[in-house]
Amino acid sequence: MLAEPRDLSALDSVRPLRWQDDALDVLDQRRLPHETAWLRCLDADAVCAAIRALAVRGAPAIGIAAAYGAVLAARAGDFADSVARLRAARPTAVNLMWALDRMSARAACGADAEHLLEEARAIEAEDLAANHAMGHLGAALLEQGAGVLTHCNTGALATAGFGTALGVIRAGVAGGRIARVYAGETRPWLQGARLTAWELQQDGIIATLIADSAAAALMRTGAVQWVIVGADRVAANGDVANKIGTYALALAARHHGVRFMVVAPVSSVDMAARSGDAIEIELRDADEVLTCGGRRIAPMGAAAWNPVFDITPAALIDVLVTERGVLHKPDAAGMRRQFGAMHA
Amino acid sequence: MLAEPRDLSALDSVRPLRWQDDALDVLDQRRLPHETAWLRCLDADAVCAAIRALAVRGAPAIGIAAAYGAVLAARAGDFADSVARLRAARPTAVNLMWALDRMSARAACGADAEHLLEEARAIEAEDLAANHAMGHLGAALLEQGAGVLTHCNTGALATAGFGTALGVIRAGVAGGRIARVYAGETRPWLQGARLTAWELQQDGIIATLIADSAAAALMRTGAVQWVIVGADRVAANGDVANKIGTYALALAARHHGVRFMVVAPVSSVDMAARSGDAIEIELRDADEVLTCGGRRIAPMGAAAWNPVFDITPAALIDVLVTERGVLHKPDAAGMRRQFGAMHA
Repeated sequence: MLAEPRDLSALDSVRPLRWQDDALDVLDQRRLPHETAWLRCLDADAVCAAIRALAVRGAPAIGIAAAYGAVLAARAGDFADSVARLRAARPTAVNLMWALDRMSARAACGADAEHLLEEARAIEAEDLAANHAMGHLGAALLEQGAGVLTHCNTGALATAGFGTALGVIRAGVAGGRIARVYAGETRPWLQGARLTAWELQQDGIIATLIADSAAAALMRTGAVQWVIVGADRVAANGDVANKIGTYALALAARHHGVRFMVVAPVSSVDMAARSGDAIEIELRDADEVLTCGGRRIAPMGAAAWNPVFDITPAALIDVLVTERGVLHKPDAAGMRRQFGAMHA
Repeated sequence: MLAEPRDLSALDSVRPLRWQDDALDVLDQRRLPHETAWLRCLDADAVCAAIRALAVRGAPAIGIAAAYGAVLAARAGDFADSVARLRAARPTAVNLMWALDRMSARAACGADAEHLLEEARAIEAEDLAANHAMGHLGAALLEQGAGVLTHCNTGALATAGFGTALGVIRAGVAGGRIARVYAGETRPWLQGARLTAWELQQDGIIATLIADSAAAALMRTGAVQWVIVGADRVAANGDVANKIGTYALALAARHHGVRFMVVAPVSSVDMAARSGDAIEIELRDADEVLTCGGRRIAPMGAAAWNPVFDITPAALIDVLVTERGVLHKPDAAGMRRQFGAMHA
C-alpha cells in the first residue's frame, strides 16, 4: 500500500528543537498529537526540567537539548553546576553524557558561550547528517514490498530530525521498498500512538498502530519482515538498551524469522559498558502505568512496576546500523572492530 | 510479600451477574474500577447489547449471561430468534455457543421459562464449582514462594465467580504458596489494570501492574515462575485462543524457563475445532486502540489493527487445567483422552 517511491525531502519536515532569540525552544512532546506547543527554555534548569518531564525525549534529542542547555549555563556563568544537573536528568541514554562531555571538553579549553553555541549546533547538524546516512544504509537492507514494525518514537522528534529507525523507514518509503508500516503504541507513554503516528502523518505516511502485545500475533500473520528500532545505549558486546518492549519484540522476531534491525548514531554507543548488565535502567513513577492519556485507569491503591527500558541481548539482533556502517550479527569482536577507536 | 496463608472464603467476594426481579443485572465492567454500577437487562436484546459492548465479558461469564438471556427470550415468546442474536454477539469464546446449545436442547424438549431458569442457574452454579475445583488443582502445581504473572481478567468478573486463572491465584494465595502477583494491564481494553487489580483488591490482594510489553523484561529478572492465563477457546489439539498478548507471553515464558498454565472450564474446550487455525478471531473497532480510558490518544486519521485474541500453540503450554484435571503438555492425543467423550 505504500510501495511507491516518494520524494525524500518531502519526508523530512519535523524538527523537535530550535535555537532562537538566545533560548532553546522545545516542541512539547507531552502535548502531541493534540497540540503543537513550544516550550521556551531560557536557562539550563529549564532544559533539565524539560528532559526530566519528557517534554523532549529520545536519546539523540536529549543529548542535543542538553548541549544547548550547556550554552545557556555558560551564558549564566554557571557551567559546571548546571552541566552536572543536566547530566543527572536521565540515566539510561548515553547521548546525554556524550554531548555534555563534548561541551565540557570545549569549555575546559576556554571556549566561550559563543563557541559553545557553535559546538551545540555542530552536534545537532552531525546528528541530522548521521540520520540521513543511517536511513540509506538501513533502507538498502530491505527487500521490495517489506512490511516493517517499529516501536516507540525514533523519528525526527527523538533526534535532530529525520530519525534513526524512522529514518530508515522514511528512506525505505522514499525508495519504494516498504509496503506496510506498523507501530506499537508503546505503553505507558504512548510514543508510538502519540508521536510516531503523528510524525509520519506530517509526511503523508499512514502507519497502522497495534497494542504492543499484538506484535507477536502480527508477526505470525506474515505481514512483517523487519522489526526496526532505535537504541538509548549500545554496549561493547552489542547488547542494546531501548524502550521497554524492545526485548519482547526481539524474542518474537527470532521465533518468527523476522529480522531485527537496531539503528542508532555512534553517540549512542558506549564501549565503556561491557554488556547490557552494566547499563542503568531508569525506573519511572508507577503513575505512568496507573494512568493513561492523563486519566486514572487503575483503582486507587494499585501498584505498578515501570522500567522505561529493557536490554535486548546482541544475539537477538541481526544488524546494527550506525553512520559508520552496517554491522551484521553484532558481538564484542565486531563492535571493537567498528567502534574500538572511539574512546582511544 | 504475599506468602502467608489466608482464608479462602474471604478471597471470593465478587460476582458479576445477578438474577433478581425477573431480570438479569450485569455489573457494568466498562465503568470499573471507578464506579460499581449495575445494568438491568429486561430482555434478551439488552443482554445481547451488554455482551457486544463488553459490559459483561470473559468467556464463562458471557456464556452464563447468554443463558439468562435465553430465559428472558423464552418469557417473551421469542426464543429462537433471540437465541440466534445472542449466539452472534461475539465469535471467539465457545462458551457462548455451548451455553446456548444447552438452553436450546432444554427448550427443544419442551422446557418452559421456569425450567430454563433452573438450567441457567445450573450453568452458573456449575461454573462456580468448576472454578473452585480448578483453583485447587492449579495451585497445587505451584512451588512455595512462587511469583506469578497473569493477563487480562480471568477472575470472578469473567466467570460466575472466583475465576479461572485468577481462581488458581486466589487458591495459591490462600495456600500461602504465592509470594508475588503481577498483572499485565492488557491494552487496549485494560482488563488487567481496571478489572484484575480492582477485583483482587476487593479480596485484599495487591497485584503489581506492568505495561504488557514489560513482561519479557520482568521474566528476565527472575521474579516470575509461572504465567497463568485463561482461555476463550481450547482447540482439539490443545491450541488456545485467549486475549491478545497471550501468545507473546508464552513465547517469552518458554525462552526464560517460566512455566505456562492455561486454566479454563470444560465449557471452553471445543473438540470440533481441530486446531487454533479453525478458531475465528474477533477483530474489534480500531478506536479501541486509538483511544485510552475514553480519551483519544492517536492523531485523527490514524489507523489501527485490533485483534481481540491470539492463538497460543499447544507446544508452548506446560499445563492445561480444567475441572476434569491437569493435562501436562497438552496435545491432540491428551486432549482426546481427557475430552474425547464430550461430544459423543
